[in-house]
Amino acid sequence: MSEKSSTKSDVWSGRFSEPVDELVQRYTASVTFDKRMAAFDIQGSLAHAEMLCAQKIISTQDLADIMRGLKQISEEIANDSFDWQIALEDVHMNIERRLTDLIGDAGKRLHTGRSRNDQVATDIRLYMRSAIDDIDHLLHRLCESLLNLAEKHFDTILPGFTHMQVAQPVTFGHHLLAYAEMFNRDIERLRDCRKRVNRLPLGAAALAGTTFPIDRERVAKTLEFEEVCRNSLDAVSDRDFAIEFCADAALIMTHISRMSEELIIWMSPRVGFIDIADRFCTGSSIMPQKKNPDVPELARGKTGRVNGHLIGLLMLMKGQPLAYNKDNQEDKEPLFDTVDTVSDTLRIFADMVSAITVKPEMMRQAAFQGYATATDLADYLVKKGLPFRDAHEAVARAVRFCVEKGCDLSEMTLEQMREFSNLIESDVMEILTLEGSVKARDHIGGTAPLQVKNAIANMRERLGL
Amino acid sequence: MSEKSSTKSDVWSGRFSEPVDELVQRYTASVTFDKRMAAFDIQGSLAHAEMLCAQKIISTQDLADIMRGLKQISEEIANDSFDWQIALEDVHMNIERRLTDLIGDAGKRLHTGRSRNDQVATDIRLYMRSAIDDIDHLLHRLCESLLNLAEKHFDTILPGFTHMQVAQPVTFGHHLLAYAEMFNRDIERLRDCRKRVNRLPLGAAALAGTTFPIDRERVAKTLEFEEVCRNSLDAVSDRDFAIEFCADAALIMTHISRMSEELIIWMSPRVGFIDIADRFCTGSSIMPQKKNPDVPELARGKTGRVNGHLIGLLMLMKGQPLAYNKDNQEDKEPLFDTVDTVSDTLRIFADMVSAITVKPEMMRQAAFQGYATATDLADYLVKKGLPFRDAHEAVARAVRFCVEKGCDLSEMTLEQMREFSNLIESDVMEILTLEGSVKARDHIGGTAPLQVKNAIANMRERLGL
Amino acid sequence: MSEKSSTKSDVWSGRFSEPVDELVQRYTASVTFDKRMAAFDIQGSLAHAEMLCAQKIISTQDLADIMRGLKQISEEIANDSFDWQIALEDVHMNIERRLTDLIGDAGKRLHTGRSRNDQVATDIRLYMRSAIDDIDHLLHRLCESLLNLAEKHFDTILPGFTHMQVAQPVTFGHHLLAYAEMFNRDIERLRDCRKRVNRLPLGAAALAGTTFPIDRERVAKTLEFEEVCRNSLDAVSDRDFAIEFCADAALIMTHISRMSEELIIWMSPRVGFIDIADRFCTGSSIMPQKKNPDVPELARGKTGRVNGHLIGLLMLMKGQPLAYNKDNQEDKEPLFDTVDTVSDTLRIFADMVSAITVKPEMMRQAAFQGYATATDLADYLVKKGLPFRDAHEAVARAVRFCVEKGCDLSEMTLEQMREFSNLIESDVMEILTLEGSVKARDHIGGTAPLQVKNAIANMRERLGL
Amino acid sequence: MSEKSSTKSDVWSGRFSEPVDELVQRYTASVTFDKRMAAFDIQGSLAHAEMLCAQKIISTQDLADIMRGLKQISEEIANDSFDWQIALEDVHMNIERRLTDLIGDAGKRLHTGRSRNDQVATDIRLYMRSAIDDIDHLLHRLCESLLNLAEKHFDTILPGFTHMQVAQPVTFGHHLLAYAEMFNRDIERLRDCRKRVNRLPLGAAALAGTTFPIDRERVAKTLEFEEVCRNSLDAVSDRDFAIEFCADAALIMTHISRMSEELIIWMSPRVGFIDIADRFCTGSSIMPQKKNPDVPELARGKTGRVNGHLIGLLMLMKGQPLAYNKDNQEDKEPLFDTVDTVSDTLRIFADMVSAITVKPEMMRQAAFQGYATATDLADYLVKKGLPFRDAHEAVARAVRFCVEKGCDLSEMTLEQMREFSNLIESDVMEILTLEGSVKARDHIGGTAPLQVKNAIANMRERLGL
Repeated sequence: MSEKSSTKSDVWSGRFSEPVDELVQRYTASVTFDKRMAAFDIQGSLAHAEMLCAQKIISTQDLADIMRGLKQISEEIANDSFDWQIALEDVHMNIERRLTDLIGDAGKRLHTGRSRNDQVATDIRLYMRSAIDDIDHLLHRLCESLLNLAEKHFDTILPGFTHMQVAQPVTFGHHLLAYAEMFNRDIERLRDCRKRVNRLPLGAAALAGTTFPIDRERVAKTLEFEEVCRNSLDAVSDRDFAIEFCADAALIMTHISRMSEELIIWMSPRVGFIDIADRFCTGSSIMPQKKNPDVPELARGKTGRVNGHLIGLLMLMKGQPLAYNKDNQEDKEPLFDTVDTVSDTLRIFADMVSAITVKPEMMRQAAFQGYATATDLADYLVKKGLPFRDAHEAVARAVRFCVEKGCDLSEMTLEQMREFSNLIESDVMEILTLEGSVKARDHIGGTAPLQVKNAIANMRERLGL
Repeated sequence: MSEKSSTKSDVWSGRFSEPVDELVQRYTASVTFDKRMAAFDIQGSLAHAEMLCAQKIISTQDLADIMRGLKQISEEIANDSFDWQIALEDVHMNIERRLTDLIGDAGKRLHTGRSRNDQVATDIRLYMRSAIDDIDHLLHRLCESLLNLAEKHFDTILPGFTHMQVAQPVTFGHHLLAYAEMFNRDIERLRDCRKRVNRLPLGAAALAGTTFPIDRERVAKTLEFEEVCRNSLDAVSDRDFAIEFCADAALIMTHISRMSEELIIWMSPRVGFIDIADRFCTGSSIMPQKKNPDVPELARGKTGRVNGHLIGLLMLMKGQPLAYNKDNQEDKEPLFDTVDTVSDTLRIFADMVSAITVKPEMMRQAAFQGYATATDLADYLVKKGLPFRDAHEAVARAVRFCVEKGCDLSEMTLEQMREFSNLIESDVMEILTLEGSVKARDHIGGTAPLQVKNAIANMRERLGL
Repeated sequence: MSEKSSTKSDVWSGRFSEPVDELVQRYTASVTFDKRMAAFDIQGSLAHAEMLCAQKIISTQDLADIMRGLKQISEEIANDSFDWQIALEDVHMNIERRLTDLIGDAGKRLHTGRSRNDQVATDIRLYMRSAIDDIDHLLHRLCESLLNLAEKHFDTILPGFTHMQVAQPVTFGHHLLAYAEMFNRDIERLRDCRKRVNRLPLGAAALAGTTFPIDRERVAKTLEFEEVCRNSLDAVSDRDFAIEFCADAALIMTHISRMSEELIIWMSPRVGFIDIADRFCTGSSIMPQKKNPDVPELARGKTGRVNGHLIGLLMLMKGQPLAYNKDNQEDKEPLFDTVDTVSDTLRIFADMVSAITVKPEMMRQAAFQGYATATDLADYLVKKGLPFRDAHEAVARAVRFCVEKGCDLSEMTLEQMREFSNLIESDVMEILTLEGSVKARDHIGGTAPLQVKNAIANMRERLGL
Repeated sequence: MSEKSSTKSDVWSGRFSEPVDELVQRYTASVTFDKRMAAFDIQGSLAHAEMLCAQKIISTQDLADIMRGLKQISEEIANDSFDWQIALEDVHMNIERRLTDLIGDAGKRLHTGRSRNDQVATDIRLYMRSAIDDIDHLLHRLCESLLNLAEKHFDTILPGFTHMQVAQPVTFGHHLLAYAEMFNRDIERLRDCRKRVNRLPLGAAALAGTTFPIDRERVAKTLEFEEVCRNSLDAVSDRDFAIEFCADAALIMTHISRMSEELIIWMSPRVGFIDIADRFCTGSSIMPQKKNPDVPELARGKTGRVNGHLIGLLMLMKGQPLAYNKDNQEDKEPLFDTVDTVSDTLRIFADMVSAITVKPEMMRQAAFQGYATATDLADYLVKKGLPFRDAHEAVARAVRFCVEKGCDLSEMTLEQMREFSNLIESDVMEILTLEGSVKARDHIGGTAPLQVKNAIANMRERLGL
C-alpha cells in the first residue's frame, strides 16, 4: 500500500487550516482493512449511479463514464495493481479518487445524493449478506458430514454421559445428531438475521436524507435488498445486524467448542473412542510420540475470539448518541475476523468429521462401566407396579451393593437382585443389555436405532440434502 | 425459607454413604431462585401426567390425585404458605415431595418417564415464552409513546448531529422515530427467538429418551409448544434459546443506552433541549439545586449488567461436553435478572417518554450554530451544474470564511457568497433556511415533516397500534 | 423491608414540584442491596464525625449524640429490627434519617462537609478491603489443602498431559503444586489491588471538595487507609479498584475452572484417577446409579458469572463523563455477587481438596499408555552424542513402529530398538521406567519427587503456613 | 511469506503416516503473526545456548556456531530477506530450521532441554516486558501533557458536572488532574503486572522439566528475569500475565474513553469549552462545514476492542486442563492488538492534549448556569449554626424560587434570600462568586487553585517528571 501522504485530504480539506497529523492519518484511516469491501462498494456505486441517471440527476454520458471507470477499477483491484493510499482514508475515497482520475467530472458527480455514512452501511450489508450465504452453505456441509457419519453408526453403542459420569447407553449416531440439531438451529438464526441485514440504507445520506429526487426502491431492487431502511438517522447509525450476526457466530462457535471438547476427550488415550486422521493433527517439537488434536483445540480456543468480538461490538455501540460517530469505524475488523474464523472453522470441521475413525469396541467397553442400565432396571420395576420414586430407591441400593462388590448390575444373581425388590424376575436380564436399553427408547427424539434413522431422514429433508 | 436439613437427600440417596455437606447443600441448591418457575413447573407436570394417563402409564385415579395435589400446591405457593426447603435442592423436588406428602404413591409416579434434566428445560422454556410475550408488549408500549411524541413534533426542528457536531437540521419527530425503528427490530428479533424457545424438550428424560410409551406430541399440544425437540441429548443440554434471548436483550439495552445518552445530554443545561418530569428525577444530598436524570443514567448503566449476563452465559456453555452438566444450573439467575432488568426499564421508559417536555426554541437556536445548511448549499450548486466534489470544496471554503468572520452562511451577503461560486444567485436564501432544508429531504426515510407523518402511520400499521 | 412511600423524598425534595413515581422509586433505590454495607457506613460516619468535632465543625455534644445514635442503629441492624425504607433510597439516608429521629439536630449535622458521592465510595472501599482480606485468607486455606495433599503424593506417578494426550510422567504432588502456584499469584494480585482500594475518598464531597476546614489525613488514619485520594473529581468517580478486583476474581475463577475440569475428568469412570467424597457430590432424580461431581461442575459454571460481572463493570464505566453519574450505582450488585461467589467457592474447594481419594494404581496404569517416556529415550540419545533433532526423529520412528505393533517402548527388544539407533545400549531400560523418568527431571520447577518436597517447603514459607 | 508446503512437517513427522492437510496447515500455523516475536525468540535462544554450553551440554564450538547463525538470522529478519514458511508452523521452527541450514548439527542441538511450550512462554514474556515498558513511558508522556495544560489552567473556572447537570464550579486544572490520577494508577498497575511477567518459564520443557542438568537461574540472570517459574506444569500453561495485562489495558482504555467522551462533548458547539487542533480532526465527504473530533471518537470505540480481547482471553483459558493445549496459540493476536491499540492511542493523546485550545469565557459562562454555588450557600448557613440538613432544605427552596423566576442565586436580593433563612446577611455575596467558591475548597484533593498547584508538583514528583 502506498503511504504517500498528500499534503492534505482533498476530500474535505477546504475547511481546514492545517494538514492531518501523520500518526492521526494512520490511526484514523480504515483503507488497510475496509478495502476488503471494494467489490461491494463498486456494486453499490453502480446501482446508485444507475438510479441517479434514471432520475435525471446525472446524464447518461456520466453513467456510461462511471460504469467504464468502475469496471477498470474492478480489474485493477482484481489483478492487484490498484494503488491504495492511506492518505485517502478509506475504500470509498480511494475508489472515487481513482474514478475521477480516470473519467473526470463524472466521477465527481457520483457522490451526489449520498454520503460515506450511508455508503459504508450499504457496503457492510452487502458484504454480510454474502458472508451469511457462504456460512449457511458451510453449515449445510458440516451437517452433511455429521449425518453421513451418524448413518454409519446408527446403532453403534457408547455410554451417554451426564456430569461426565456414565448415564445411559446411547447410539453414536444419536449423539452426532445432537450436533446436527445445533448447527441446524444456527442456520435458522442466520436466515432470520439475513432478513434484517438485507435492507437498504443508501439514500439516508449523512443522516437526514438528501435534497435530490432519489428513488430508493429502485436501488433496493437493483441490489436485491428486500426493504429500504425507513429512517435515515437509524440507517446510518444502526449496527444491530452486525451484532446479531456476531451473536449467531458466537453460538456457532459454542457448538463447535462443545463438539471439540468431546473430540479431544474421545481421542485421549484413557477414553479412546475415536481417532482423528493424521492430516488434522500435529506433533511435538520435543516429545516424539505425540499426535495432538490441534484442530479441535484451536477451534475451541477461537470461541473466545469470536465472543470477544461480540462483546467488543456491543461495547462499541453502548451509549453512542445519534447519528453516525467515528466509533463505528471499529465495527469492521471484528466483523471480518468473525466471518473468517467461523468460515475456516466450519470448512475444516466438515472435512475432519468425515475423517474420524470410530472405535466401537472401546465405546462398548466403556458402556459397561458405570451401571448404565440402572434406569432400565428402575423402569422395569415401575412397569411391575412400583411407584417410580420407590423403584429409584431400590435400584440405588442395588448399585451401592454392586459398587462395594465391584460388579455390574447384570453380574448380580437373580437372588441378589431380589434382595432389593422381589418384583424382579428372570425376564430382567434382557432389559439390562446395552442393546435392549437403547432399543427401548423408541420415540421421537429417543436414542433407539430406528429413531436415529428416522431423524437422519427428517433432517436431510429439512436441510434439502 | 426453611433450611432444615434432612439427614440426606431422599431424592437420590440410596447410593450414597454420607450426607451432603451443609455448605455444599447451600452451594448446589437452586430452590432459592428457581422457585420463581413454580407455576410453570406445575403446568408442565400437569401436561405430563395427563399424557401418562392417556398412554395408560398411570391410572386415572393417579391423575386425579396428581391434579388435586398440584392444585393445592399452587394455592400454597400463591398464598406464600408453601414451605420451601433447601435440603430438597430445587423447585422440582420441593413440589414433588409436597405432592407425595399430600397424595401418596401417585406422587411418586409423576416422575415416570421424565428426569429433572428435561423437566427443568421445559420449565425454563415456558418461563421464557411468557417473558418474551411480556417484553414484546412493553416494546409496543414504548413505541407507542415514541410515536405519540413524534407526532406532536413532526415538524419541530433541531440540529441533527454526527460526531456530536452539528450536521444538518432534522425534525424531532424524525429523530424519535429512529428509536422506534430500533425497538421495532427488537420485537422482530424476539419473535424469531420465540420460535426456537417454543419447542418441547420433555420426553428426553435424562438424556436418551425413556422406555415408557410416551406421546410427546400430545404434551407439546397441551402446553402449546409448536414443535418437539428432535434429539434427546440436544434437548437436555441446549441453552441456545437463553443465549439468543440475552443477545436480543443486550440489543434492547443498547438502544435504551443510546436513547439515555441523548436524553441526558439534551437535559444538560448547556444543551437544554428537553426537560424530564420531576417524578423521574432525583436530587442531591449535598447540592440543593440538583435535578438529576437518574432514570436514563441508571438504564445506561444497566446495559453493562445485561451484556455481562450474555457473556456469562456464553462462557458457561463454552466447551461443555454433552449432555447435561451441573454448570447449566448457572443459566437461571442471569436469565431472570435480564428479564427483570429489561422489563422494568421498558416499562419506566414508556412512561418517561410521555412525560418529556420539549423546548423547541432551544432546539431551533442550536440549529443555527454549526452551519447546518452547508450541505444544502452544496446541493444547490450541484443542481446548478457543478460536480458534487467541486461544490463540496467551494462550500467548505465558504464555511472557513464564516468561521473566521464569526458569522453563519445565511449571514453572508450574496456578493460574499459569489466569491466562492458565481453560480450562486439570490434564490439561494430560501434553501439556507432550516424549514427549507428539512422540507427538501422528501423521500422515504427522509426528515421532511410529511415523511415523518407517513412513517408514523406506517409504523402504527406494522405494530398494530 | 418497609416500602411505605413517604410522599416525597425528604433528602433533596425542596427543589421538586412533584413526588417521585413509585416505579421510579423502586427502580432507582439501592437500599435493597446496599444495606449490606451498613456496618461500613457507620464506621465511616463515626470517623467523619470524630474529625468534624476535632476540627470544631461540630460540638463535642453533637459527637457524643452521634456516637450514641449510631451505636443504637448498629444494634438495631444486627438484631434485624431496623426498619429499612425504600423511600429513603439507600443505606446512607436510611441510617441518617434514623439517626436524626433518635438524636435530633446533631443527626442533621453529620452530613456536614461530605456528600453521598464520597460517602458511598468510602463505604465500598471499606467493604472491599474487608472482602479482600477474607479472600486472601481463603486462598491460603486452599493452598494449604493442596500442599497437604501434594505432600502425601510427592512421588505418586500419573501421566502428564498436553493436548489431553499422554506427554510425560509427572508426580501428582507436582501437578497439584501447579494450582498452588496459581492461587499464590492470586494472593499477590489481591494484595496489589488492596493498595489501591485502601485510599480515602471522603472529603471529596460531591466532586470538588468542601468549604469546611476538614482534616482528611485524620479520617484516613482513623479508618486505617494508607493514603487519601488526591483529586476530588477522581475520588467520587473512580471505580477502578472494583474492576481491578473483579479482574483478579476472574483469574481466581479461571484457576478454579481449570482445576474443576481436571477433577471432573479424573473422576470420570474411563479415567478414574480420583474419587470425591460423597458429601461433595449429588445424585440423579432418574438414574439411581449416578454420583455426580456437582461442586466442581458448578464452580466451573460460576466462572462465566464472575467474568460477566467483570465485563459488566467495564461496560458500566466506558465513556462516562466526570464526575459522578447514577450509572455508578450499578457497581454494587456485581461486586457483591463476585465476592460471594469467590468466597463460597474457595471455602468449599479447600474442604473438598482435603476429601479427595487418590487412586495411584489407576494413575500408574494410565502412565503406561501413550509412550510417556519417549522424550527420555530422545534425551538418552542426545547424551550419547546425537543432535536433539535427529534423536527426536529416531524416537518418532520407533514410536510409530510400536503403535503399529501395539506395544510400549519398554516392551521392545534391545535389538528392535537398535533398528532406530545403534547408539542404544542395555542401559536404556532404566531410563524408560516411570520412576527413572520423573526422578531425572531434577531441577527447580521439575517434577522429581525431591523437587516437589523442596517446592512444598518453599511455598509454605512464602505463604507463612 | 513463502507458502511452499514441505511434503510433511519435518519437526515432528516421523510418527505420522500422512502429511498435514493444507487448510489445516494454514489454520494451525502461527508464523503469520508470531514472527513478530522473532527478536525475543533469538534473545531467548542465545541465553539458552549460553547456559547449555556453560553446563557442558553443548560444546563451545556449538555455541559459537549458534551465535554466528542467529546473528545472521537477525540480520536477515531485520532487512526483510528472511524466508518465512507457513509449512514450518511458527517463528520458532522457522528460525531453528534456518539455523540448521546455516550451521548444521549445532543447530539441531539448540532445542536440547527445552520445548516449544516453554520457549513460546519465554518469548511472550520478553515481548510483554518490553511492551509494558513502552506503555509505561507513553503513560508518563500523557500525564506530562495533562500536567502542563493543568498548570496553565490552574485557576480557569468551569462548571463541575455530576449527572451532566451543573454541580459546583471547579478549576479546569483540577479537572485535568483527575485524568492524570487515573493514568498514574495505570502505571502502578502495569508495574505490579510486570513483576509477574518477569519470571522465567524456560526449563519447564514440555511440561515436566528436562533430564539435562540445566541452570535456570543462569538463564534468568542473562535475560534479566527477576525469578524463575517454580512449577513446570504451571510455567507452560500459565497465561495469567497476559490476562492481567489486558485487564490493565482495559482500564487504560476506560480512562481514555471517559476523557474522550468529555473532549467530544466539550467540543460540541452547544458546549464549546475547547477546540482540538485541525490536524487531529477530519471532515465529511458530504457536509462541507464539518470538523469532527475523530481521534477521541475512535479511541472511545477502541475501548470495546480491548475489552473484547480481555474477555476473549479469559474465555480461552476457562476450563482448560493442564498442561499446554493448542488453544493457547490464540493468546497472541489479541495480546499484540491490545499492545498496538493502547500504544497508538496513548501516543496520539499525549500529542493531542498539548494541542487543545481552551475557551475560558465559554466555561465561565456555563458555570453561571445551574446554580453552581448552591452548596456554598448551604455551607454558609451551616457556618451560621443551621444543621446541614436544614440548610440544604432552605437552599433547595431558594433554588426552586430562582428556577421559577428565571434568575441565579446571586441575582436575588438580600431580602429575597432572607425569605429562606434569616441567617443570611450581606457577607453572603462573596461566597456566591465562582472565585469564592473554588477558593474555599482548600484542602488536599480540593479544587482550590493553590491545591491544584500543589497537586501538580506532587504528581510531577511521583512520576519523576
